[in-house]
Amino acid sequence: MATFVLNSVNRSARITTKRCFSPHKLSTLARIQDVSVTPFRSATVHRWSSLLGAKWLSRGTGVRFMSQGAAGGHTPGRTRRAALVLVGVGAAVVGFVANASHFRRAEMAAERATQVAEQVDDILEKCKGFLTPPVTDIQVLQENKGDMCTRMEMLIMETQAEFVRALEKVDGGKFKADRWQRKEGGGGISCVIQDSNVFEKAGVNVSVVHGHLPEEAAKQMRSRGKVLKGKDGELPFCAMGISSVIHPKNPHIPTVHFNYRYFEIEEDDGSKLWWFGGGTDLTPTYVNEEDAFLFHNTLKEACDKHHPQYYPDFKKWCDQYFYVRHRGETRGIGGIFFDDLDSPSQEEAFGFIKSCTSTVVPCYLPLVNKHLNDSFTAEEKNWQQLRRGRYVEFNLVYDRGVKFGLATPGSRIESILMSLPLTAKWEYTHEPAEGSKEAAMLEVLRTPKEWV
Amino acid sequence: MATFVLNSVNRSARITTKRCFSPHKLSTLARIQDVSVTPFRSATVHRWSSLLGAKWLSRGTGVRFMSQGAAGGHTPGRTRRAALVLVGVGAAVVGFVANASHFRRAEMAAERATQVAEQVDDILEKCKGFLTPPVTDIQVLQENKGDMCTRMEMLIMETQAEFVRALEKVDGGKFKADRWQRKEGGGGISCVIQDSNVFEKAGVNVSVVHGHLPEEAAKQMRSRGKVLKGKDGELPFCAMGISSVIHPKNPHIPTVHFNYRYFEIEEDDGSKLWWFGGGTDLTPTYVNEEDAFLFHNTLKEACDKHHPQYYPDFKKWCDQYFYVRHRGETRGIGGIFFDDLDSPSQEEAFGFIKSCTSTVVPCYLPLVNKHLNDSFTAEEKNWQQLRRGRYVEFNLVYDRGVKFGLATPGSRIESILMSLPLTAKWEYTHEPAEGSKEAAMLEVLRTPKEWV
Repeated sequence: MATFVLNSVNRSARITTKRCFSPHKLSTLARIQDVSVTPFRSATVHRWSSLLGAKWLSRGTGVRFMSQGAAGGHTPGRTRRAALVLVGVGAAVVGFVANASHFRRAEMAAERATQVAEQVDDILEKCKGFLTPPVTDIQVLQENKGDMCTRMEMLIMETQAEFVRALEKVDGGKFKADRWQRKEGGGGISCVIQDSNVFEKAGVNVSVVHGHLPEEAAKQMRSRGKVLKGKDGELPFCAMGISSVIHPKNPHIPTVHFNYRYFEIEEDDGSKLWWFGGGTDLTPTYVNEEDAFLFHNTLKEACDKHHPQYYPDFKKWCDQYFYVRHRGETRGIGGIFFDDLDSPSQEEAFGFIKSCTSTVVPCYLPLVNKHLNDSFTAEEKNWQQLRRGRYVEFNLVYDRGVKFGLATPGSRIESILMSLPLTAKWEYTHEPAEGSKEAAMLEVLRTPKEWV
Repeated sequence: MATFVLNSVNRSARITTKRCFSPHKLSTLARIQDVSVTPFRSATVHRWSSLLGAKWLSRGTGVRFMSQGAAGGHTPGRTRRAALVLVGVGAAVVGFVANASHFRRAEMAAERATQVAEQVDDILEKCKGFLTPPVTDIQVLQENKGDMCTRMEMLIMETQAEFVRALEKVDGGKFKADRWQRKEGGGGISCVIQDSNVFEKAGVNVSVVHGHLPEEAAKQMRSRGKVLKGKDGELPFCAMGISSVIHPKNPHIPTVHFNYRYFEIEEDDGSKLWWFGGGTDLTPTYVNEEDAFLFHNTLKEACDKHHPQYYPDFKKWCDQYFYVRHRGETRGIGGIFFDDLDSPSQEEAFGFIKSCTSTVVPCYLPLVNKHLNDSFTAEEKNWQQLRRGRYVEFNLVYDRGVKFGLATPGSRIESILMSLPLTAKWEYTHEPAEGSKEAAMLEVLRTPKEWV
C-alpha cells in the first residue's frame, strides 16, 4: 500500500513537474550565482545543473529545474499542488472503490492516501521553492515525511529561501550558495553576499548533520547539561538548524541575527530525546525606540500565540546570553533566546518554531526599508565599525555555537565564521562624549530595557 | 648599619638629582603626551605632574621630572651615576675609617656600602629614564633592591622606555601613556599610539600585580599545571611582565609581538616558587626570507649565549603555541616562546630574559626602517586586513594571556585588548590565487619553516 501510493505520487510528480513548473521559480533559482559543493577543506565547485544531476535528479523524478523556458503557465504553487494531488491520488483511489462492500473502508483509505500523497507531494513541491536541493536526499525526506527531522529540515530550507529572496530584493545583488558535505554525515547550504549594495556581509546558513556523539559531547549540546546513556558510550544524533547574520553598510540599519535549531539524540534503550532552541536578536548602531518596538513587538506577538510567559522569559534569556562580560555590555538590544525547549509537546514546540521563523522577514525587512536611504556621517560609520569589533568579541569569546563549532574537528569554518562582519575596528580607550548618541547606545547596552 | 647607608644614600639621591638631572631625559619625558591614572573602569586622568606629585614625589626625594629647563649640564647617565655614588658613600665610609685598628673591616664595609648605594642609586637613576614612574613605589623598590621582583620590574620598565622611544623616533608620533591601578594590588602602564604615521596601532604595556590567588588559579598560571599548597587555600603571588604588539600601516612592515614575564608564588611553608616566561614572534603579511632570517637569527644569537637548545626548543614551542587550530595555520612566522622557565638558576634565567629583552629593538626596528617607504597596492592592503582578521581570531580564541585576562574580574580590558589591530577584515571563503604571493604566505603558515 505504502509502495503503491509512493509510486503513484512519484508518477504524479513526474507528470506535474513537467507540466506545471513555474517559470517564476525557475528564474529565481537561476538568480543564485553559483552553488559549490564543498567536501571538507576542498574547494571543488559544481554548477547547480551538475549538482542536480548528481543528487536531486538521480532519483529519476524528471524534475528539470534548469530547463528555463520549457515550463508552461504561471500557476501559483499552492493552487497547483492541490491539482496535482488529485491526479496522484486518483490512481490510488481506483484500486479501492472496485470492492463496493467495503465502501467506508475504501473511503477512509482514500482519505489517508490523500493525506500521505499530499505530504509527499508537498515535500517535492516545497523543494522546488528552495534555493538549492535540501541537504538530505529528497527521497529520504519523502520516505520519512512525518519525522520531525524531515519537517524541521523543510522548515529551515523554506525559511532560508524566503529570507534570502527578501534580502536580494532590497539589495539588488545575489547571494552565493555554497553546498558542503560532512564526511561523518549530513552537510549544509551557506548563502552569503558580501560588499553588495545594501549589505556589507550577510549570511543565511542551513546545516543538517547526523552521526554518533560521545556522551560528554552530547551532554554539552544541552545548555542544562543532562547525563545521557549511549550504546558503548556513543549516541546516534541528528542536529539541524538555520543561522543568519546580516551586517548592513548603512549604520542606521541594524544588524540582525537569528538561529533556530532542532536536536535529536537516541539513547541506549532506543528512546529519543529531542529539543528545540533558537532566537532572533537585533544589534543596532544607534538607539531607535520605534525600531526596537517594532522588532520586539513582532517577536512578542509570535510568542504570545503559544505561551504568555515565552516573550518575557525568552527576552530576559536573550539579554543574559548575548552579554559581553568583559565589557559589561550586551551585544545589542536583544530579542528572544531559548534552548532545551522540549514541552509541552513536540507538535506544539514545533508550532512555536514555525511562528518564530515566520517572523524573521517581518521583524527585519521593515527596518531595512525604513533606513535604506538614511544619510550618515564618517563618525557614524566609525562608531558602527567599533560596535562591529564588539560583535566579533562576543562571537569569538562567548558564543556557544561558535565555540562548539571551532572545537569540533571537521566543522566548516567558513560557515561558522560567516557571522563575523566584513570589517571591524578596535580603538584603544574609545569613550563616547557625554550626552552623545553613542553614549545613549552604550547606556542601553549596559542596562537592558523593556521595549514593548 | 643598613639604616645608616640608606640614609646617606637617600641624602645623596636628594643632592644628586637636584644637581645633575639631565635635560635630555627631561625633554624625552615631556614628549609623552599625557599620562592617565585609571582605577578600574574609571577614566580619571591626571597629568604627569600631578601623578608625580601624588606618587613619586610623596617620598620627598626632591626629584622634579617636570621642571624643564631647571637642570644643568648634559651629563651622560652612567658617568653621572658614578660621581653620585662617591658623594653618597663618602659619608658612610667616614663612620668606619674612624677606627684605625679595624681598617680591613672598614674597607670591606665601605665596599659593601658602595655596592648597596650603587644599587639604590642605580634604581633612582634608571627610573629617570623611564616613560613614567614605575608601578611600584620607588622607595619600596630601593628597599627591596635585590629582590627578583624589583629587578624584573626595573627591566620591563627599561625595555618599555627603550622600545617606545625607538618606535617614536621612526614614526614621528607620540605614544599616550596610561597608568592604571589594580584595587587588589599593583597596576600597570600602557603606552599606545594609534592611526599615526607608520603605525596603525602599537602598544607597549607593563603590568605589576600582586595579591592572593586561589590554589586553582595559581595552578592555571603555569602551563605545566602544578599543585600548589597555600595557606587556607590562598597563595600570595606577584606577577609582572611587559607585553607589546605593533601593527604598522604598510603591509610590507611585519607585525611584531613580544611578552616577557615573571611569576612568584609563596607556598604554605614560606618557600617561593618562581618562573619566567615569554617570547618574541613576527607576523608578516608577505614572506620575506631576508627579514625572517634577520629576525630569527637575532633571537638565536641571544638564545645561544645561554643554552644551545634554547633556540631550537623555543622556536618549535612558538610555532606550536601561535597555532590557529581551526584554520590549520600558525599566526605568523614564529620566533621564540617559552614558559615555566625555572632553571638552571634564578640568576641565569634572569640573565636569559635580559638577553631576550635586549633583542627587541634589533629584531624589529631594522625591518621597520627597511620597508618604511615600500609602496603597496590596494590588494596588498586588503590581504593585510584579512591577515589581521586571523590575528584577532588567535588572540580572542586561543591566547592564554587574553583568556586569563578576560576571565579575571577587575582586569584592565583596554590593556588586554590593545593587542587587537585598529582594523581587520573577514571575507567569506577568501582563497588566494595559485602561485600568488598570498598563497606563498599561506603555505609558510601551514608548514612552519626553519629560517636560520
